Parts: sequence; structure tokens; C-alpha cells
Amino acid sequence: MILIPKDKHVYSFGPSMKPAAKAKPGDIVVFETIDALGGQIQSEKDTIAQIDFSRVNPATGPLYVEGAERNKVLAVKILDIKVEEKGVIVTAPNAGVLGNIVKAPKTRICRIKHGIVHFGNIKIPAKPMIGVIGVAYDEEVPTGTPGKHGGNMDTNLIAKGTTLYLPIFRKGALLAIGDLHAVMADGEVCVSACEVSGSVKVEVDVLDGKLEWPLLETADAYYLLVSKEDINDAIQEGVKLGVEALAKANKLEWDEAYMLASLVMDVQISQIVDPAKTIRVRIPKEYVGLEAFLNTEGF
Amino acid sequence: MILIPKDKHVYSFGPSMKPAAKAKPGDIVVFETIDALGGQIQSEKDTIAQIDFSRVNPATGPLYVEGAERNKVLAVKILDIKVEEKGVIVTAPNAGVLGNIVKAPKTRICRIKHGIVHFGNIKIPAKPMIGVIGVAYDEEVPTGTPGKHGGNMDTNLIAKGTTLYLPIFRKGALLAIGDLHAVMADGEVCVSACEVSGSVKVEVDVLDGKLEWPLLETADAYYLLVSKEDINDAIQEGVKLGVEALAKANKLEWDEAYMLASLVMDVQISQIVDPAKTIRVRIPKEYVGLEAFLNTEGF
Repeated sequence: MILIPKDKHVYSFGPSMKPAAKAKPGDIVVFETIDALGGQIQSEKDTIAQIDFSRVNPATGPLYVEGAERNKVLAVKILDIKVEEKGVIVTAPNAGVLGNIVKAPKTRICRIKHGIVHFGNIKIPAKPMIGVIGVAYDEEVPTGTPGKHGGNMDTNLIAKGTTLYLPIFRKGALLAIGDLHAVMADGEVCVSACEVSGSVKVEVDVLDGKLEWPLLETADAYYLLVSKEDINDAIQEGVKLGVEALAKANKLEWDEAYMLASLVMDVQISQIVDPAKTIRVRIPKEYVGLEAFLNTEGF
Repeated sequence: MILIPKDKHVYSFGPSMKPAAKAKPGDIVVFETIDALGGQIQSEKDTIAQIDFSRVNPATGPLYVEGAERNKVLAVKILDIKVEEKGVIVTAPNAGVLGNIVKAPKTRICRIKHGIVHFGNIKIPAKPMIGVIGVAYDEEVPTGTPGKHGGNMDTNLIAKGTTLYLPIFRKGALLAIGDLHAVMADGEVCVSACEVSGSVKVEVDVLDGKLEWPLLETADAYYLLVSKEDINDAIQEGVKLGVEALAKANKLEWDEAYMLASLVMDVQISQIVDPAKTIRVRIPKEYVGLEAFLNTEGF
């Protein structure tokens, strides 16, 4: 097993990334992670108005994966996510969906024990998830921004038991992971979730085929994860790719697949508060397999 | 039991509505409905390019409910939805999320038998739902448009076993129902679902309190249903109301409730293809009760 300690981390996904560790397909790797605030918020007196933003959203890694090269696909099977007992949630003026209403920065410390997140005296079942997970892109993208390479997708389905497929842009893929949440609702409306340090255990693999955008596999469905500045653009791109996958999997004409999509393909929101918004398009496994998403032309 | 036959129907929710039937709170009423295409599409040779659009989206009713008056709330408990065996799905150039790609109008007839929708040789479990359900608004709103009065919300959770709460604008409320779907995915991306005629059995009641927008209650959660031309405006309005309900229910300061929302309140898409788009904001019943949504100031 390979361990990447939390002091090995990056703040952007791009050409500047230098491998912190190397793995072969099939290897199991543990990423120790620092919370999205860079550990700078320790009490409810600390607010994001005072922190050093150059230390926000550290992503542990990157991991160089042998055999990973441009126009192949990196498969990241999430075997486990462990979170520490102290989480933090923050908001501030101009942050999140209702940032125009927030009068002053605010911080809340949450205790996480025995699978429960304690927000004051309100108890919330913990559902640990990964906020930032991605690979090196052609240009430097800050870890706080999601895109084709993955990154800050803040999708609460990226959790234990799922597999994330990422397009590869650079040799070795250069996978980095950070920004764990003990719990987050769809939307992440106040700009943060229950931000927490912890560790993620994954199994990495390299597949033939090509992806345009990240793809998530759960027990019962595939989800296309598309991020764009305008949510309408993200929806249009995700629906387009979903219809193409339905057409391919079911040998349908394009317009037939468009109709089928209207019956079986859900358009959902992952987050609407990052520099690009992330939507997900869900297709149940009854109607599509992995091969329908992987563009294998030329193979 | 009161029955409203399908020949009693309207094409707008507004001052022009004249009662087709009357009921008292607690009464059970059956609405027989015509499909959203007005029954004009009978074979795959018929397309929406040829139909009379003044006959689209008929809503059966309206039902005058005694005691219903402005600034009260109409509760509509959906006891059952029955759909006929023949459904239709349509699309056309400029229709739906990818209307720019559609080259020609297209129609598909679907058979619905034993709880299965047959789309060609693809089998989809039927999940009957109500597309159009609303009350008379202050001005005439076409039945194809959703708004504060309800209308064409195309929310697939408006199904058997749920209760929809609608603001009342005019004496008697004037409830009308139509546009049943045998199945529809979130988004309704191609502009239509499996459109079908059928009948809906409901129990109506009148509550004190005031609502800004329709509210849906399922077994485990409340959903605020907000429709606006720009999805971002709908999201902002829905999140604002959800945070206010969380603050009230949990006796929290506004900014605390905003944070809690980020952990427990999901922002979801109902439909993105009607003249106004409908989002829903889900709050689990663990964190909120009905009274938190009903503005009872002045009562």
C-alpha cells in the first residue's frame, strides 16, 4: 500500500505538478488530506475574512500512475473515506447562493462522532465525501475550480463504494485528492460544507477509451459530471453527452435517444457555489453500460 | 365522491375560471384528464408541428372549494392516479434542452401495461405523476406555464401518497388538474414525458396560514417548488425560503440556518423546458415541520 502524507499537496491541477508518489494500475493508495480551509480555522472566532487564501483547498498528491497517458481514462475506486472528529463550516458576505444577505463572516465548529455530525444540538448523519479529486489539466486550474479534469466538483455521491472515471491529459495522470466533507447537501448553498481533514483509500486503474468529462459509477447508475460557469451551459453539455450514451447503448437514432432521456435520465445539481457550477446527469444501469460513455474510436 | 369529467377543462389559471364542481373541505374528488396534447396525437405519423396549440395542456376543473379564500392554503392529498394504456412522447426542433439539434418533429407511442411503459423494446417502470396542478391566479396564466399558483410544474414527485399545498389567490381556490405522465425523469429534457390521459383522486382541505410558493409533502421530506424564467432566480428564491423555514423550525439565527441548509437542504431540478423552469428545495422532516413553511403572522 502506498501512503501520501498530507504535507505533499498542491493548489492547482496543471503542468506544474511534480509526482509525490508513483503507483501501478491495481495499486491501493491512501491520501491523507487537510481540510479545505488549510487547517486555518480552529475555533468559532476564526473566520474566512482573516485567512490566507493561498492556502485554501490543498489537494494531496499528485500520484503518478504508470501507463496513464493522454486520451486514456483513469479509474479511481473509492475504497474508504475516514474523517477526523472536528469539522468546520463557514460562510461570509457574497458567499454562496444568498451571499447578498449575509452580513458578517461566520464560523461553526461541528463535532463528528459515531457517524453523527453535531451542528449545535442538531444531529445530522455523517456521509463522508470527496470535494476535490482530479488530474493534471493542460493549463493550471486552481484546486477550487471544477472542470474536465475533475477538481472541486463538490459532488456528494463521490463517496465510499463508487468509482470515478477521469479523462487523462498528461503522462502519469497526476491524481490529487482533498476537501473532504463529513456531510454536504446538493447545492452546498452557503459556500462550504462540514469541512474536515481525513484520509481516502483508493484503487487506481487505467482504461482504454476517452472521456470528455468525469463520469461516476455507483451501485445502480452512471453520472456524467459537467461543470461550467453558467449552469444552463453545464446542463446542455451533460444532456448532450447523456443522449449520445443512450443512443449508443440502445442502438437508437439520436432523436429517439433524446426522447428516452426525457423518461429515464435525471438532471441533478451537485453544487452551485464554486467558480464553475457542477451538474450531474444520472442514467440507471438498466439503460447504459460503461462502454457507452468511453469513446473508443481509433482503438 | 365528486367526479369532474374531462370535457370540463380550462387552458389558463385566472379570473376567467368558472367552477365546474363544488366541494367541501374533506371531500374526495376525481378529476378525469385528457393528455397534454389534447388527445390530438394518436399515431406516430401525427407530430406537434400539425396540432392546434390552443388545445394543448387542458386542465380538468376547476373545483370550487368552500371556505377557500385568499391568503389561506389549499391542501391536495393525492390518493390515486390512474393512467390509460396508450401514452405518447413528442419532440421537435427548438423543443427542450437540445432543441437546436433536433432536425424534425418526432412522435413515439408508448404502451403502458402492468406497470411497465414500453418505449420500443425498452421497458421502463411506470411512475404516474401530475404535470399540471394549480389554482386560479390573479391574472390569466396559461396552463403550460408554472408559477406561484402551481400549474405546469412537471415535478415527478407529485404522485400518489403525497400532499401538495397551494397558496390561494381567489375565492374557492379553483383547483384544476391535467397533464398526467406515466413516467418522467427530472428535467423532462426533450420537452415532453410519456403523456397520457387518466384520472386523479384527491382529498381537498383548507388550512390557515399563507404560502409564497407551492409546497409538496412526501413521506420523509418537504419540497418548496419554485418556478422562474431563469433557473438561477428560482434557485435563489427557493433557497431563501428554505433557509427561513429552517431558522423558524430550529430557532436559529438566519446565518446559522444558512449553514445548516448547506448540510441538509438539497437543491434539485424538476423541469428545465417549460416557459418557467421549476426547481425544488428538499428539507427532510427531521429538520422542519409544516408549520415552519406557513406564514401565520396575523393569525
